[in-house]
Amino acid sequence: MTQLESARAGRATPELIAAAEREQIPAEELLRKVCEGRAVILSNRRPRKPCPIGEGLRTKVNANIGTSPDYVDIETELEKLRAAEEAGADTVMDLSTGGDIPAIRKTILERANVPVGTVPIYEVALDGDFTAERLFEVIRQHAKDGVDFVTVHCGVTRASLETLSKHPRLCHIVSRGGAFLAKWMRDHGRENPLYERYDELLGIAREYDVTLSLGDGLRPGSIADALDPAQVHELMIMAELCERARKAGVQAMVEGPGHVPLHQIEAQVKMQKELTKGAPFYVLGPLVTDVAPGYDHITAAIGGALAAAAGADFLCYVTPTEHLGLPKPEHVRAGVVAARIAAHAGDIAKGVRGAAAWDRQMSLARRQRDWTRQIALSLDPAHAAELRHLTKPGNEEVCSMCGKYCVFKLSEPNQEPGK
Amino acid sequence: MTQLESARAGRATPELIAAAEREQIPAEELLRKVCEGRAVILSNRRPRKPCPIGEGLRTKVNANIGTSPDYVDIETELEKLRAAEEAGADTVMDLSTGGDIPAIRKTILERANVPVGTVPIYEVALDGDFTAERLFEVIRQHAKDGVDFVTVHCGVTRASLETLSKHPRLCHIVSRGGAFLAKWMRDHGRENPLYERYDELLGIAREYDVTLSLGDGLRPGSIADALDPAQVHELMIMAELCERARKAGVQAMVEGPGHVPLHQIEAQVKMQKELTKGAPFYVLGPLVTDVAPGYDHITAAIGGALAAAAGADFLCYVTPTEHLGLPKPEHVRAGVVAARIAAHAGDIAKGVRGAAAWDRQMSLARRQRDWTRQIALSLDPAHAAELRHLTKPGNEEVCSMCGKYCVFKLSEPNQEPGK
Repeated sequence: MTQLESARAGRATPELIAAAEREQIPAEELLRKVCEGRAVILSNRRPRKPCPIGEGLRTKVNANIGTSPDYVDIETELEKLRAAEEAGADTVMDLSTGGDIPAIRKTILERANVPVGTVPIYEVALDGDFTAERLFEVIRQHAKDGVDFVTVHCGVTRASLETLSKHPRLCHIVSRGGAFLAKWMRDHGRENPLYERYDELLGIAREYDVTLSLGDGLRPGSIADALDPAQVHELMIMAELCERARKAGVQAMVEGPGHVPLHQIEAQVKMQKELTKGAPFYVLGPLVTDVAPGYDHITAAIGGALAAAAGADFLCYVTPTEHLGLPKPEHVRAGVVAARIAAHAGDIAKGVRGAAAWDRQMSLARRQRDWTRQIALSLDPAHAAELRHLTKPGNEEVCSMCGKYCVFKLSEPNQEPGK
Repeated sequence: MTQLESARAGRATPELIAAAEREQIPAEELLRKVCEGRAVILSNRRPRKPCPIGEGLRTKVNANIGTSPDYVDIETELEKLRAAEEAGADTVMDLSTGGDIPAIRKTILERANVPVGTVPIYEVALDGDFTAERLFEVIRQHAKDGVDFVTVHCGVTRASLETLSKHPRLCHIVSRGGAFLAKWMRDHGRENPLYERYDELLGIAREYDVTLSLGDGLRPGSIADALDPAQVHELMIMAELCERARKAGVQAMVEGPGHVPLHQIEAQVKMQKELTKGAPFYVLGPLVTDVAPGYDHITAAIGGALAAAAGADFLCYVTPTEHLGLPKPEHVRAGVVAARIAAHAGDIAKGVRGAAAWDRQMSLARRQRDWTRQIALSLDPAHAAELRHLTKPGNEEVCSMCGKYCVFKLSEPNQEPGK
């Protein structure tokens, strides 16, 4: 039975119980969310800590790792995996497109302590042409290997591509999976097999309890393209597929953009939540401007925070090298931290249990000038300690910004116990 | 005559004309905004490029530099000034609290190409006790030296401090100027001289056309304290003082927080704009969480983007060393870039002229894989070039993320001219 089927049968699985504990919510509450398809629990058969994603839960962060045609080195990928986990990523996706992809995947699956996702179409499309049979075979293999969630671009259909061609964009298709599928459909004059044979896909997902992450192959690739007819059309298709997944007892999330101007983010999240009846929303960024390559982790943190506040449940990080090249481990780290800041800011805003309490503890430690505790409570304690050391004060009681004029010292005689 | 008085007389000053050109708006429009106190033009008598701030204008970015009791080195401060200007700061503030403060200020004023702001109270309060006379003398000296805007915490009054004491906070007063004044008022049992003798302050400001930046001495220093009675009370006082400044022909802005949870930012900006009848709003951050020391430039970029989108006009940067120590030149650079990203994301959202066009050009260059142009159009071209080089592709036509699977190559035969 899948987590969804168990929940429907009223049975709290060990994974659900563990997940509810980590979230500090009653198991019954999580069970109800899973039941309604408003939350998923990423957990294939392998012994990794299960990750719950969805309504009312802490916003999670995914880190993409993986080789590219230009950089194939499994040691570097394992370093990225470690960097991602140490920085606090909740999941990783292996998006390898270079080298022995099945072997890389298996190694990452062996080493990862967090759930792992993949995009199976890469493996078949990289060699050029492929068959629908081969695509399904590979998806089944990923599931069998223990992948916890797969991105499947089922909404790239003849109909949504027709909409795209009627409303041309500045940046056409920027999802790799979406671009591969669109090319295949054009070359073969056929419908997207992931859409046409969706029941078969559901069968595989159900068998292994792989969560389907319905990929937005037509996501906007520039802010000028955001919220256009093709994007909305694809979302409507994904919403239907999401409902079919629920009926089949399969856990599903919906992926979202991408490049979105700040003033559209809330609307995009609300639209997704309404159309999909509250399916977990997994967004990439979103990037609120196209002009800051080298800093897209910051651009994405702005969009991600706003998306999380509006109800997005899962943030795919973006690294500083986005649009420039494949990230190195230090960029993975920077990307995860920025996305965690965004997720936490969103969690405070949407009132996730325990979120604001962390800030309160930190501010109390700050008022008390308890530096050990401030460092320990930091989102990235090692980095905070490093910067404090780099800019060290003359007096350890304060910091070098204000020194003896520290406002907490100035205010001290006046300091009330506070609220 | 001040810029405000000239505007009222219907006279477009050379500074106003130059500012309007830089903003790509008609001079009459800027003149009207200045007239109504909805925009200010920072320009004391010195030959720096005037900086317009306010409604309908590009959101500006300020970088704080200056010594601290622990770090006094004018060469480092000049390096920070260069870093700030090179990274694109629109203004700098010299917040020195260590060494020969008047000499440091004069050197920075000599070297700066952008308008310079100060917080005069530091200079008098650092030595311990001071008199109201001495404070006004120092303010006059700053104006005479050519400072373009001064932060004056006029809203820290007996009444607002009474409100604060009735509603204790987690972090009491975290503004240095506010803390100095509150201590002085307590020690002397007197009203804030900047409030009590506000007309005298207006006289100095008018004489030199120094823009008053009404400082929020009671800004929240933790998200738990945001939008509390003391903050709102102080804002109401500042709104009145703002109106008195307008009547006196003095340009004024209002400063804002600080630490604000994401879901309160829009409300805070709207409140300021309503109460102050559209006075330029100069915010510090805002930081949307307290827990990320070492990354407060990112935390501030999230809040700053949202504030700018909601109508804030001027973002004070926050550096990665905030809450940990005095920034070094590299932290100044990082802070300015993050704040510029936030400002630009906000400008797209609020529809500032020309903002989205920059993104469109970048995305076009991206689609065309024109790397020279992508780098040139980057918010920080040198950094983008550096990362591209660090993660260099096998083939110069693409990047190393996707290599030959570049989506723009995959989509090419299909690529329509776009919108």
